[in-house]
Amino acid sequence: TPTFRIALIAGDGIGKEVMPEGLRVVLAAAERFGFELDCRTIDWASCDYHAEHGQMMPDDWKEQLRGVDALYFGAVGWPETVPDHVSLWGSLLKFRREFDQYINLRPVRLFEGVPCPLAGRKPGDIDYLVVRENTEGEYTSLGGVMYEGTEREIVIQESVFSRHGTDRVLKYACELARSRKRRHLTVATKSNGIAISMPWWDGRADAIGRDYPGVTIDKQHIDILSARFVLQPTRFDVVVASNLFGDILSDLGPATTGTIGLAPSANLNPERKFPSLFEPVHGSAPDIYGQNIANPIAMIWSGALMLDFLTQGQGAGRAAHDTILGAIEAVLRDGPRTRDLGGTASTTELGMAIAERV
Amino acid sequence: TPTFRIALIAGDGIGKEVMPEGLRVVLAAAERFGFELDCRTIDWASCDYHAEHGQMMPDDWKEQLRGVDALYFGAVGWPETVPDHVSLWGSLLKFRREFDQYINLRPVRLFEGVPCPLAGRKPGDIDYLVVRENTEGEYTSLGGVMYEGTEREIVIQESVFSRHGTDRVLKYACELARSRKRRHLTVATKSNGIAISMPWWDGRADAIGRDYPGVTIDKQHIDILSARFVLQPTRFDVVVASNLFGDILSDLGPATTGTIGLAPSANLNPERKFPSLFEPVHGSAPDIYGQNIANPIAMIWSGALMLDFLTQGQGAGRAAHDTILGAIEAVLRDGPRTRDLGGTASTTELGMAIAERV
Ligand SMILES: CC(C)[C@H](C(=O)O)[C@@H](O)C(=O)O
Ligand SMILES: CC(C)[C@H](C(=O)O)[C@@H](O)C(=O)O
Repeated sequence: TPTFRIALIAGDGIGKEVMPEGLRVVLAAAERFGFELDCRTIDWASCDYHAEHGQMMPDDWKEQLRGVDALYFGAVGWPETVPDHVSLWGSLLKFRREFDQYINLRPVRLFEGVPCPLAGRKPGDIDYLVVRENTEGEYTSLGGVMYEGTEREIVIQESVFSRHGTDRVLKYACELARSRKRRHLTVATKSNGIAISMPWWDGRADAIGRDYPGVTIDKQHIDILSARFVLQPTRFDVVVASNLFGDILSDLGPATTGTIGLAPSANLNPERKFPSLFEPVHGSAPDIYGQNIANPIAMIWSGALMLDFLTQGQGAGRAAHDTILGAIEAVLRDGPRTRDLGGTASTTELGMAIAERV
Repeated sequence: TPTFRIALIAGDGIGKEVMPEGLRVVLAAAERFGFELDCRTIDWASCDYHAEHGQMMPDDWKEQLRGVDALYFGAVGWPETVPDHVSLWGSLLKFRREFDQYINLRPVRLFEGVPCPLAGRKPGDIDYLVVRENTEGEYTSLGGVMYEGTEREIVIQESVFSRHGTDRVLKYACELARSRKRRHLTVATKSNGIAISMPWWDGRADAIGRDYPGVTIDKQHIDILSARFVLQPTRFDVVVASNLFGDILSDLGPATTGTIGLAPSANLNPERKFPSLFEPVHGSAPDIYGQNIANPIAMIWSGALMLDFLTQGQGAGRAAHDTILGAIEAVLRDGPRTRDLGGTASTTELGMAIAERV
């Protein structure tokens, strides 16, 4: 049997509550589809760990993760004890960068049973993938403050784009678009305002796009693109964007499907030189933690993406993914429901209901 | 009679079609409310001018605009002949900067008669103001390309925030929030990812906010904030944002009200040291130009904002503004309608219908 090594990092807040349900479902799928998951629980990369050790991770975190195929990740952040920029740059963002998880893949999909905030849209109308660059771009701590603390203060913030980093995400998105029925790729840009990096980014999109003649490429400024996520969601198939634009679009997209509480994500190192990381988009949600009411679907769906990625090329993983997604679909349609969707089921009950169907 | 000097710059594309209708309505309002508009038509700041002169504006453009109180501006951009970054940085963005129009004020409002893309929302549910910083931040041509044209290419793009520029937009937004019933201010940020400028921006928001104890201040990351524009639009009152974030939010907001075709904007130099500029958000729309079908409401509404600003402190301008807005409201409810809203009326017919009511 194929065996995959998984590090389980529940992290903070509702990460701890949704993790067991995610695990329940992926284990059920593994059993059914005949592969093995060798799981290890890790308590660092969390604010609890920080409280005890004054840092988010042990110094030898990379060694401890040697040989691991994937990180199954709950959420990080507990602003009461650790400021967000410390906890995030000390764990999640560190994983993305040091494990070169340069693709952040975020499916957006409208389900039956989830009230859509857009009028007149039905399942099938909203079904696209956001491919976000995940290691560079606008997320940096480069720059500084001049005349600090005075009236004359000036702040410089630098964004950094490499051809290496840009081309590979554009290629990934083009390949992905080519593999889909509609073969349509939207490229987010803002070349009319951000005058150095974005015209350059457009040029790279043109250059890479030339190698994919079967893919239609449509460059759109981020302002009007955001508007079209609301006004014309059916036009999207694959959407590729820089780190910041991808961050925005991958919250906005799920919002148009009713809730960001269901949105999963895959932080991929497609070459498998490093482990990839799979996490719900929702974060640690301190306000609802401790009541066992969090919706575990984003965690479970992220687990499905994990199985698909781990077994790529083998039929079993895709089948496991599709089966889990089918179970999610069925439960969203028929219940039980957690409180965010108008029901009374607990996190655990929902996990069990989905696992049962798998 | 109070007299205001207005420069009329129709610009490109549908700018030329909506300008006469805007003018028709503001002149009608001026007559009714007893002030005079001394208008001058200007043909530069357009791509037509560029075709003839190889630049967007004459060298002495500032002198030519001396003594002008406001620019009433259609749209700029005709990518077939002039690349967008050239036409925009050569006119619109130049005005914003050199006339220090540091406030870009963009009202977002749902009207009766305009189908709302959000399910179950009615007029009154969406009614807020986006205050966008308009002169600095992410919109720069600072930075550069290293190893240009090679595989190793690296691009640096710099954003620049000054305390001067940041504090004044935050103050403006706080004052505005304080003048409203709900006294609520949302501050867009991304301090968890953009690690130098955004934590600093948060600090400035805290500092300025302390002087406005009656205003509730709510900082939100741009990703979740975008999601909430869709999911919880009723929670917003005044929203303040950097140049880029404000650009995105002020297209997304209007999209949630059914169309960005109605959205107006005011580019203000509140100190009146320089002329302010009033323009529809929609741009030159080459695809529909020449058919007299463009909806002139954004232009007309921008004209109402102009009258309000010009006569601030005097009753007449506010009354003129409110009257025009009332006429827009009535026409959106009772027709006629332009094609974008399902009708068959021309640009001219709509302008006349609104002018008549004024
Ligand atoms: C045309 C473009 C440069 C401009 C901007 O981004 O400011 C426009 O989108 C706007 O919002 O006024
Ligand atoms: C928590 C934050 C740093 C993170 C991001 O912006 O990348 C999150 O919003 C996400 O989308 O994964």
